[in-house]
Amino acid sequence: MPVHPFDEAMALTPAGAAQPDTFQGASSPAYWNMVGPFGGTTAATAVQAIMRHPQRLGEPISLTVNYPGAMAQGKFSVTARPVRTNRSTQHWMVELLQPDTAGAPSMVMTATAVTAVRRTTWSADELTMPTLDFSDATPRLMFSTSEWTRRYDMRAASGMIPQVWDDREATGENASQTQLWLRDDPPRPLDFASLAAMSDAFYPRVWLRRATRVPAGTVTITTYFHATGEQLGQVGSGYLLGQARAQTFSNGFFDQTAQLWSAAGRLLATSNQLVYYKS
Amino acid sequence: MPVHPFDEAMALTPAGAAQPDTFQGASSPAYWNMVGPFGGTTAATAVQAIMRHPQRLGEPISLTVNYPGAMAQGKFSVTARPVRTNRSTQHWMVELLQPDTAGAPSMVMTATAVTAVRRTTWSADELTMPTLDFSDATPRLMFSTSEWTRRYDMRAASGMIPQVWDDREATGENASQTQLWLRDDPPRPLDFASLAAMSDAFYPRVWLRRATRVPAGTVTITTYFHATGEQLGQVGSGYLLGQARAQTFSNGFFDQTAQLWSAAGRLLATSNQLVYYKS
Repeated sequence: MPVHPFDEAMALTPAGAAQPDTFQGASSPAYWNMVGPFGGTTAATAVQAIMRHPQRLGEPISLTVNYPGAMAQGKFSVTARPVRTNRSTQHWMVELLQPDTAGAPSMVMTATAVTAVRRTTWSADELTMPTLDFSDATPRLMFSTSEWTRRYDMRAASGMIPQVWDDREATGENASQTQLWLRDDPPRPLDFASLAAMSDAFYPRVWLRRATRVPAGTVTITTYFHATGEQLGQVGSGYLLGQARAQTFSNGFFDQTAQLWSAAGRLLATSNQLVYYKS
Repeated sequence: MPVHPFDEAMALTPAGAAQPDTFQGASSPAYWNMVGPFGGTTAATAVQAIMRHPQRLGEPISLTVNYPGAMAQGKFSVTARPVRTNRSTQHWMVELLQPDTAGAPSMVMTATAVTAVRRTTWSADELTMPTLDFSDATPRLMFSTSEWTRRYDMRAASGMIPQVWDDREATGENASQTQLWLRDDPPRPLDFASLAAMSDAFYPRVWLRRATRVPAGTVTITTYFHATGEQLGQVGSGYLLGQARAQTFSNGFFDQTAQLWSAAGRLLATSNQLVYYKS
C-alpha cells in the first residue's frame, strides 16, 4: 500500500542525540498552496513533532500556530521543547526554521501547545451539531487549483463558495458561514495531526462575505482538541462536519471561528484564527 | 493622583543593555486570586512587555498566553523577543520566569503575539452586539472574595453566577452564557493591556452550567484585538459589554468563547480559552 500523502508530509527524522528536541522534515508538494504548502500541514507538523517527542506526557489539548513567513520548497527543521511538565499537563514551545535565500535560518512557524493526561469527568457538548444531511450537500468543492485542495474531499452544506465573483456583499448574521463535510482524500484514519490540518481547511471568509477573491492568509490559528486519540481513532476515516464563520472584519484582519464534529455528533475540535486580507 | 492599581501591576523596568528584550516586574497583590494573581494581569504583562519594547512594529492584533505554573508573590522577569519582523507584521515570543522555591528559574507564562501596522480597508462587524440595557443589569457582581474581583465593576445582564450552589445542571444552547457590563474599578482609560486582562474576567463557565463551584483554571487564552490603540482611547473608561460561553466540556477541560464590545457597539476583542476543571 502506498504511503498516504499526509503521512509523507508528516515524515520527520530525529536530528540526533545532540539536538534531542529537533526533527528534520520537508515541505510537501502534495499539499502545495499558492506561495508555500497549505498552512494546515504546517500546523500539523507542530503536532507531529510533539507526538514524536520521547518525553511527551499525554495528548494535545491545545495548539497555537503563528506564521511569520511563507514556507519554501525543501527541507526544514522543527524543534519542540517541553518547557514545563506538571503532574498531568505539559507545555510546549515549537519553532520551525528554514534557510533563507542567503542560507541564514529563517523563522517560518512558531507555536505553543499543551498536552495533558485526561481524567474522565462530567462532560457535555453545549453546542449542538447542525442538523444536516450529507446527501443534501453540494458536489465536491474545488475552490482553487492549488494542489492541496485535491487532498480534501469537501462538500458544502451551506455557505458554498461564490459561483460568481461580482462583489455583491452578503450581510447579516452568519453571512460568512460555511458548513461542509470533509475528509482526507484518499481517506485516512483521523489523528491529532490531521485534525489540526482540517481545522484550517476552510476557504477565506472574506471571499464568501464579499464575493471578491482578495488575497488572504492565516496569521495565527489556535485549535482546542476535545477528544482523546482513542476517540479520534473511533472516528476512523469518515467525514467530519465542519462549520466556520467570521465575527468581524477590521482593517486588514478578520477572525474565523470553526468547529469540527464527527458524523456521530461529537465535537472533536474548536478552532479560531486571525486572517490577513487585502482590500 | 495616585497610580491606578492596574498601572502599578503593569510596571516594568528594563533589565539593562545586556538583556534588551527583558523587563523586571512583580506580581500584584491588588489583583490577587486564589493561588496567584488573576491570570488576566499575567496576559496583560505579555502585552505590556511588547508595548514597552523599543523595536515594536505596530500594535497587537493577536495574543496567546499559556499558564504552565502559578505565579508566586514577588518579582518576575519577562522577556519579549521579536522573532521575525516583516513589512507590516511582527511576531513575538514571550516568556515569564520566576525563581522556584529552590531559586531555579521556573516558567510561569509562555506567550506568542503578533503586532501589525493596520491599513484602512473594507470592514464589517458580522456579529451584532446583543441589545441590552445597562439599567436592566444586576447590581455589582462579586463572585469571589479574591482581591482581583474588586478591581472590576461587573454587572450581569444574563447568566448571573448561581445564587444557590445546588448542583442543578443547566442544559440547552447558551446554558453557560453570561453577558455582563464591565470596567476597571477605579475607572481607567482602555488600552491593549487592560483589554487583554478583561478578556479573562469571566467566572468559570462550568460553575454556571453545573451550579457547583468546582476548582477551575485557565490553561491557555487567545485574544484577537480588532481595534487600534486610537480606537481604544476613544472608548475611554466606559463600560464594555462582554459575553462568554462554552462550546463543550470534555473530560477535564472546557473551552470559553468571549466577545467584548464598546458601549457604542464596536467589537473590540474576541477571545478563546481552554479551562481545566475538576469534577
